[in-house]
Amino acid sequence: MPEALQNLIRVLARLPGIGRRTAERMAYRLILRNQALLRDLQSALDRAARELTLCPRCGNLTSVEAVPCRICTDSNRDPAFLCIVEGAPDIQILEQARTFNGHYFCLQGKLSPHQQETITQPILERLLQRIQEDRVTEILLALNSDVESDATAAYLAEHLQPLGLRITRLAFGIPAGSGLAYSDPETLSRALKGRQAL
Amino acid sequence: MPEALQNLIRVLARLPGIGRRTAERMAYRLILRNQALLRDLQSALDRAARELTLCPRCGNLTSVEAVPCRICTDSNRDPAFLCIVEGAPDIQILEQARTFNGHYFCLQGKLSPHQQETITQPILERLLQRIQEDRVTEILLALNSDVESDATAAYLAEHLQPLGLRITRLAFGIPAGSGLAYSDPETLSRALKGRQAL
Repeated sequence: MPEALQNLIRVLARLPGIGRRTAERMAYRLILRNQALLRDLQSALDRAARELTLCPRCGNLTSVEAVPCRICTDSNRDPAFLCIVEGAPDIQILEQARTFNGHYFCLQGKLSPHQQETITQPILERLLQRIQEDRVTEILLALNSDVESDATAAYLAEHLQPLGLRITRLAFGIPAGSGLAYSDPETLSRALKGRQAL
Repeated sequence: MPEALQNLIRVLARLPGIGRRTAERMAYRLILRNQALLRDLQSALDRAARELTLCPRCGNLTSVEAVPCRICTDSNRDPAFLCIVEGAPDIQILEQARTFNGHYFCLQGKLSPHQQETITQPILERLLQRIQEDRVTEILLALNSDVESDATAAYLAEHLQPLGLRITRLAFGIPAGSGLAYSDPETLSRALKGRQAL
């Protein structure tokens, strides 16, 4: 196999969810059948590298021409209601649900008590500054439901509790369109703990 | 979502086996976490576009510095034993099996009696010329086992039969490491038809 082809396959296989076999099929498709696709991918990457940046306020992905991002500058949204997410993809998913009308703060990863303070401290300081500046009254933790996310929630709760804000977390329970028969014990256990009065 | 991000996701979703959701994850990974990966992919694509070409003899992917390709110029291989494949990825797969020691000819797709002659005729002419030049004595059709590949095999057999060569096709049957219980009826039917005396 020519080295340039092996190299392309190796790089493609570093993308999330892409195994060696899929990377091979992608590489062959890019080179053999479809020179247009290769050129389009080259220019899409160039453009993304040139035009995209992180919003300095919330950490969302935004165009270099819209800094701060469209969410941060939207006067119809409430800056006092702050949603903490792990990263920009989570903002995208929440925005699709069209129910949250506050602002965001990206952790750019997970936090945990085991991490070095040199990593967690600057994030926490930026968050505290933001809370003060925007006179935040409620913090919504929009985190996943795995062990590391629970640790992140606990870490944040511990450090934010003294401020006397309302701190909430997304509810856990049975997903919409699903039923008890399809839920695992952990999901059911969380749904039971979070049961609501009718 | 910024337009440059939407554009990158759209292009990535055109790759084989990549759905919208995977394309989104790939785009975010490329932009958010890993600027090194984005740059590596850019340079891998540039390099592939610059350094890779098709071997003018067999149609395999090769480096521009190795034309004809390493298989075509390997003096230990027998040019009189010609293997016909659909495309370069098939050559890769056959070479991994390390049992074929002849030369290759890529159809760059499938042939069928229903296709226009303007498409099939030039391919057939190149193949006939190759057979003559290399004094080919056996043609092995290394095609898949779907209806269109059967049509391709029938089309080639019809046009090559008059030359009086030996024409063979890869055997169909139960895959290695598998058993009757895991084989579909069509596979079993083909394995039965191709049964061999012990």
